[in-house]
Order: sequence, then structure tokens, then C-alpha cells
Amino acid sequence: MAVKLERNAAGRKVPLDINGRESVPFKGVGKHRPEGSKAAPRVASCIDYPADGDKRVASLKEALLRVGLADGMVVSTHHHLRNGDAVGNLIFDAAAEVGAKDLMWFPSASFPVHANQIGHLDNGVIHHIEGSMNGPLGAYCSAGKMRGLGVLRSHGGRWQAIQDGEVHIDVAVIAAPTADFFGNANAVQGPAACGLLGFALADSIYAEKVIVVTDNLVPFPCLPWQIQGNNVDCVVEVESIGDPSKIVSGTTRITQSPDRRRIAELAAHFCAEAGIMRDGFSFQAGAGGTTLAFAMYLAELMRAENVTARFARGGSTQHMVEMLDEGLIEVILDGQTFDLDGVKSMREDPRHQDTSPFTSYNFHGKGNFASMVDVAVLGATEVDLEFNGNVVTHSDGRLLHGIGGWQNCLAARCAMLLVPSFRDRIPVIVDDVTTVCGPGEMIDVVVTERGIAINPRRQDLLDAVAGSGLPIRPIEDLKAELDRICGVPARPTLSDDPVAVVKWVDGTVIDTVWRVG
Amino acid sequence: MAVKLERNAAGRKVPLDINGRESVPFKGVGKHRPEGSKAAPRVASCIDYPADGDKRVASLKEALLRVGLADGMVVSTHHHLRNGDAVGNLIFDAAAEVGAKDLMWFPSASFPVHANQIGHLDNGVIHHIEGSMNGPLGAYCSAGKMRGLGVLRSHGGRWQAIQDGEVHIDVAVIAAPTADFFGNANAVQGPAACGLLGFALADSIYAEKVIVVTDNLVPFPCLPWQIQGNNVDCVVEVESIGDPSKIVSGTTRITQSPDRRRIAELAAHFCAEAGIMRDGFSFQAGAGGTTLAFAMYLAELMRAENVTARFARGGSTQHMVEMLDEGLIEVILDGQTFDLDGVKSMREDPRHQDTSPFTSYNFHGKGNFASMVDVAVLGATEVDLEFNGNVVTHSDGRLLHGIGGWQNCLAARCAMLLVPSFRDRIPVIVDDVTTVCGPGEMIDVVVTERGIAINPRRQDLLDAVAGSGLPIRPIEDLKAELDRICGVPARPTLSDDPVAVVKWVDGTVIDTVWRVG
Repeated sequence: MAVKLERNAAGRKVPLDINGRESVPFKGVGKHRPEGSKAAPRVASCIDYPADGDKRVASLKEALLRVGLADGMVVSTHHHLRNGDAVGNLIFDAAAEVGAKDLMWFPSASFPVHANQIGHLDNGVIHHIEGSMNGPLGAYCSAGKMRGLGVLRSHGGRWQAIQDGEVHIDVAVIAAPTADFFGNANAVQGPAACGLLGFALADSIYAEKVIVVTDNLVPFPCLPWQIQGNNVDCVVEVESIGDPSKIVSGTTRITQSPDRRRIAELAAHFCAEAGIMRDGFSFQAGAGGTTLAFAMYLAELMRAENVTARFARGGSTQHMVEMLDEGLIEVILDGQTFDLDGVKSMREDPRHQDTSPFTSYNFHGKGNFASMVDVAVLGATEVDLEFNGNVVTHSDGRLLHGIGGWQNCLAARCAMLLVPSFRDRIPVIVDDVTTVCGPGEMIDVVVTERGIAINPRRQDLLDAVAGSGLPIRPIEDLKAELDRICGVPARPTLSDDPVAVVKWVDGTVIDTVWRVG
Repeated sequence: MAVKLERNAAGRKVPLDINGRESVPFKGVGKHRPEGSKAAPRVASCIDYPADGDKRVASLKEALLRVGLADGMVVSTHHHLRNGDAVGNLIFDAAAEVGAKDLMWFPSASFPVHANQIGHLDNGVIHHIEGSMNGPLGAYCSAGKMRGLGVLRSHGGRWQAIQDGEVHIDVAVIAAPTADFFGNANAVQGPAACGLLGFALADSIYAEKVIVVTDNLVPFPCLPWQIQGNNVDCVVEVESIGDPSKIVSGTTRITQSPDRRRIAELAAHFCAEAGIMRDGFSFQAGAGGTTLAFAMYLAELMRAENVTARFARGGSTQHMVEMLDEGLIEVILDGQTFDLDGVKSMREDPRHQDTSPFTSYNFHGKGNFASMVDVAVLGATEVDLEFNGNVVTHSDGRLLHGIGGWQNCLAARCAMLLVPSFRDRIPVIVDDVTTVCGPGEMIDVVVTERGIAINPRRQDLLDAVAGSGLPIRPIEDLKAELDRICGVPARPTLSDDPVAVVKWVDGTVIDTVWRVG
């Protein structure tokens, strides 16, 4: 049966039915108003839980039987353990053991380590995945091998989908670096300490059943409790929840590429020249080599002009922690720690506050932090002449990346894409992005090593940096130069078969990922 | 129209309709199983909130207009400011100003300072109160002057009622000792610092609209955020949210009464002799003079036997903080701070953890802390030969006290009532309590200055202290002695008109308070 498609406000054809559920095409930024009440799990009763608080069960298999895992259920995991995670794989191995079929896996993100699930997709244990599919699982999806449609959501969009009842989690599985027998858990202690568990918070609140899996059981009460045991059904001890060396890197590396350093430096100077970098301002910069370099240059300028940031939004790294210690930043509001310095700082420094997609990104809340940030510095795989951005597919159409908080961060007062002009001789600035992940009206500045393009909608920014000496250029000029260098690349031949959709922060569908090959 | 009554499992006649809502009579401990899903407010959208995060409005009146206060709505407040609270009164003065009628006031508790509301009850602004009514409001209710039935709930029962949708809060008003313009708030900082805001947490999560009222606005982000701004609609600055000198006392006083000290000492020795006081145990003792003395005697015995408690449940006081500092207690899990030492400790010591009725008391959760506590030491106005306890009415039938966490604490492994044999020559041990607040099967030990009565259901405790030299006596013996001294008091003449009901922790109705006079 052919999938029914409709062209949305971004001009993209999107399916009206996603895995048997009616969907709403993107209507434009700020145009979709949600209806109804938040989702809510069934009311529990202490009658059904041990009075002594001890919810331990012997194995993952027993836990799945205890919570009543059944065919077709939705099982969620989180990705704070990143490419070192063991639990995402262990739980589906256990699900296979108990004979479950057609599960939907709902990770906050998946990593190459989760290539293990390809076996479970092939053998029917997993029906499909809704969540970021980095690497091998993305390629699997791109090839049209998954039975259902992939659904890609931002971190905030995942909270929104759970909160709004678009995704009903039957069983949440929370890998916990430290936990007590009641289910209180944190990630600042233990051999697999990864800082926080914010990506699993919605799961713990909204899922019908919650399983905490830990390799570091401590006496009740486990403090701090980033996950509250009062939401937890059972606790399983395993030998290891993951490989700490792959969870966080010991160090994060600032790019040594001269081009990327130039991009970072231009972006930092832009913030200074445009008046964004002023006392009490705020910024968000991730852990990529270029954005790290941006933070380094920004720190230099802040020092020189004696400017203090009221807060910075993490992902945190050693460099951000150093800025906190130096007093350049007053507070870090952190959604994930990228290295061990970040973990240590979160554990020990009350100015380093763990956050969740609820506080930071959820668009269906009473405000969130993202729109309060003065400048957010992001990457992209492609950006087009309308300033639309893509982060999930490559120019060959293949789905290889997740969205992370990218869409959410576009709400910043100034959203900047820091991108190299081309990668592997393929220009990053294109006529039309392969996949629209962010509407152009929300992307304010594109910084390349060959110049800075300001969105014409932002006359205020154009005015602010006029006469600054920064290489401000129309995006069309930049593109023309790239095309002269690289030649205009051939567009990929994409099929008419949707393999995944990209949701906007309000739950509407902004674009479709098509089968490749 | 006569109210339809039914006799419940506690043998008490209770109304089947409470303020227009069908109610469930008490079925017995652990017998009522809840149905359905948790309540949930409407989905919000960032579209409707300022992108810069600034939710301030000029006045309480404007805030009430902004959130759409309408006749008949439910307005909630919290009682962490205790008898120093100004906000509970200010908000109803503002409601009167905007012409609202027939509101239901849903405080977590009310205090004598709230006698102000009697005017609003008389003039129709407030229809009725659901929540503890201490002092003058209790007397008002007892006299049958309130248009609706009072509904008395424990702290855990209040969370349960909100969570289960029995009470739908339209507008929550949160007095915040410190807040930012986004609505993040805490109570560890500011001139009216009262420690925590746990009693307002459910309100912030489940109410349709949330107003934060503060006299100490700080730059975003307010850390820690005990209340999350993402749940808040608007923020109002006022000159003062309350009188700090009445919020917490500078010092808490251990009783000097020889009788009460003897009760406390007997109770502490009972814990030691019964083997409850052992390494890693836990206890809960409130801030009353007798329970404070209990903690003092317990500390002495712990020191002598080199015993450490894994945790103590607050209400915290200077004395409990000293035990934490001394290492007699490893962790305080605290629901309210009763003095300034408690506030300071909560602010500065990560081992002093703020809690909420969700973690501690909610019976419709996946377990709670109350049942994990080894011994809870409580007061009572009356206890009867079946060990049923009363905390809300006096023997004359008048409603003068709230339940607090009393019902919830009965879930402890050993629940002890520390009571004087008589008050004003009225025996505390009676044939039948005026109002059943706690079923006898949950009350394990009654300690008076004339002896200790152990519930015959607890043969294990009777065995444990056999031969200990403690004055263990059947409760009938104790009562007979009191009756010889005081004479059997005349039972009060109560009307057939219900003025309030007492809910059990599972939301069922355990008893009725009848109009007096």
C-alpha cells in the first residue's frame, strides 16, 4: 500500500501516517498549538511494592517478566553511556530470551555499539526504532530494511512526544552508574559515572514500568537521586553497565585544523562585534572540535574585555569547567557531560547544575531554557540558501546522524552554524538541503572559513557588525565560490519510499528521509 | 437534604458524597486498589510564554487575571512558612479584589495567621477549605459555618489526591523565599528561607496554572531549583512573603516536663531493648517537645552503644543537625525544617536531603520512604483500646489540628505514640476515639509516663522486650488506672451534621467530623 503523503509548510512531502498513528505535517514555526492533557501512567499503589523498599530482582530476564513485557511494547533506553553503553544491548538480548516480538525500541539515541540490535531487527524482536540512529543502524534504516518508519526527534522533541502521549513507553530501562535497592539513581558516582541521567528522566516519570540497571549498588538512600526510586518498579544488578573508557573521553580535543580554527575564531569575534558577548550573557557550545575552539577563543575575548557569562549551557567539557573555575562563567546548566572533568565538576560543584530536556528544550512546556540563551553554536551537514539546516543525512541521502539538541538550540537569540565550506570536496552550502531539520528563519548566522553569512531576516545583526572588518558575505556569494571550487555536485537519486521522518520540536513532521539505493 | 452516610470498615459513618463528588468509604488497610491513570494538566506551549524567560507580572491581582481565575476554582497554597505566612492571605485578598466567588482553598495546611480567611468564607470568596485547619479555622468549621465539607488529608494523602485527580488545582500559588523571573524557586536562600518547598511540589506539577510569589528575586538561574520554572506561569514580586520570626523558631525546645521527659526516655529505651536501635537503623521524630526529648535520649543510647543510624527523617531541628554533624546519623531525609539550623544544614550539607510527599508518603506510588523507617515516634490527642489513634479532634469533638504526616508515618516498622496519660484531667486513652485517624492495626506501641502498651498484634515486640524491666502493661490496665484517677469523662454530644471528613492515605474516607454545638 502506498504511503499517503502531504506537502508541509517547509515544502517537504511527509507521510500522514507514521507507524499506524496519524501525524501532523509541519505548519511553520510557532504555528502548531497542542491540545489535550499531558500523558500519565496508571496510578500505582504501595500495596504492590515491598514495604522494606527492596525492589531487586535477580536478572534482566526476571525483570522483564516481572514488568509484563509483551509483544509490540515500547521499550526505552537512554544514551548517557554513549558508545560505551552495554545495557541497550543486554535488555534486547534478554527480551529475545523471553521470546518477545515486534518491540519498538525508543532510545534517546543509539550509537555504533548498538549495531547488536541489527540481529534483533532481523529476527523480529525489534520491529522498528524511534530515535537517533548514528552509524550502522542509520545505514540499516536508510537501506529500507526496518519494518517500521524511523522517527527522529530532538532531545526536546523526545520529551514532548512522551509528555504529549505520542509515544507511550511500556518499559523504561535505565542504566544507572549508581543506585540503591529502591531505585534511586545517579550518574555522578560509580565506575561508569557519566554525570547525569536527564535523558532518562521523562522515561522514569511517564513509563508504565521502570527498570533500573546498575553495577554500583549503594545503601539506601542513594544521594543525589537524579532518578527517583518512587517511579521505579525493579532494580537489577549487572556486572557492568558499560565501558567507562568509551562513555566519556579522558580529554576532549580542540581542533587543530587551521580552517576549523579560523571558523571558530570568526564566530567568537562575531559574538564580540555584534555585542552578544557582554556581561551577564549566556552561550551554548557543544563538544565538537570546532565548537570547543570557539569556546576557547570566546574565553580569550571575555578575559580581554573582562566579561563574565551568567551561564553556559553544556554538554560540558574540561574547557567549560575551567571557565567556571576561572570565573568566566557563573553557572553551567548541563544536559550531558562529555568528559571526566565534566563529571567531577557536576559531582562536586553546586554551580554546575544537571538539567533535563524538560528544563532545557521541551517546547510544550511553560517556556524552556533554549530560548533564553544569547548565542548557540552548532554544526550541520548542509545548509541552503534559505538558511535551512540539515544534521541527519549526508548529501548522498544516507541517514547517519541524530538530531541531539540541535533543533531546540535554534531557539537561541542568535543561532550560529559553524561549518566548513566543504567536506570531501562536497560543498556544505547547497540549493536545497537533503533533509530540512531546522527552518531557515531560525538560523541566524552561518560561519565558514571563507566568510560569515548573516540571515537577511536579521537586519539587526547585519547592522551590528557593519564596519567591523569581519568577512560578512551574502550566502549566495559563498555558495557561488564553493561551486566554482567543487563544481555543483549531482543530487542523489532518492527513492519514493520513506524510511524515516524528522519531527519538529512541536511534534509535527518537518521532513522525510527516503530509502537510498 | 440529608447527607447519605455509610458505615465503613473502621465502623464509622461517613458521607458518600463530598462536595458533590462521590467518595469511597475506608475498606481496611491495604484493601483499596486505585484505578485509572494519574491526573495531568493541559499541554502548554512555549508559544504562549516569553522567549526571554521573564514571566514577571506587576501584582497578585494581575497574576490572577493572567491565569484566568474564575468562580468556583481551586486555589492552592503551601504551609512551609507556617504561622509566618503572608501569601495565603494576600492571594485571597487579591481574589476578592478581582471579584472571585466560591473558590475552594486547598492549602497543605492552615495556621492561626490564616484566620484572615474567615472574612472571605463569610463573604463568599471562599466556598470551603480542603486541608488542615489548625486553630480558628478549625473552630469555624466545627461550628458548621463553612458551606462545604472540610476534607482533611495527610501530607501523603494530599499528594495522592492531586496525583489521582481527586482534587484538580486550577491555580497554585507558591510562596518562594527565593526565585528567578522564570519561576525557578527555592527556600534555602532569602529573608524568609524555610528550607524547602516539598509541600508545593505536587501543586507545581499538577496545577493548570502556577504563580510564584517571592520577596527575593535573583538572576536566572536560581539554584537550587526546588520548584522548576518550567511549570510556572507567572512570577510576582511582593515586599514580604512572611514574617521570618514566625516561620521558623530560632531554637527548638526540649520539654522540661518531668512526665514528658519520662515518656521520651521510656520510648528511647524501648527502641534499644526491642533491638530497633541497631547499626544502620532509621527513625523519624518530629519537632514537638516530647519527640525532641526522645531524640536526645536516643542519641545518648546510640553514643553509648556506638550505633549509627543510616538515616533519620525530618522535620529537622538543631538537635537532628547536631546528630548529623556528630556522625550519629549518616543522612537526613527532610520534609520540613523547623528551625534555622535545619535551614542552614539543608542549604550547606548534601547529606541533608530535601524530600517531598511524593518520595516520602504518597501511598499511590511505587513504594515510599515511610514504610522503610524502623521507628516513627508520634503524638496523638486520643488513642483507644483497639489502638486506634486520633490527631485532629479533641475529646469535646472540636476540630483543632491537622494530620500532617501522621497517618503516613504509621507505615513505619514500629509506629509509637508518645502521649501523656491525660491532658487537663481528661484521659488520653479512651474506649473509642472521637475521630479515627489511624487504624489500630498500624499503631504498635503507646508510651505514657505510667507505662508502655504494646499492641497485642505485635507479639514479636512483646517477646523482644520481655524481661527488659520496661513497664510494659496491657492498654486496658493503663486505661483503668486513668479512669480511676480522672473518672470516665462524659462523651461529647455531637450533632448528626458532618462538617468535615478525614481521608485515609489511599483516598478513602476513614471518619467524619461532626458539627459541635
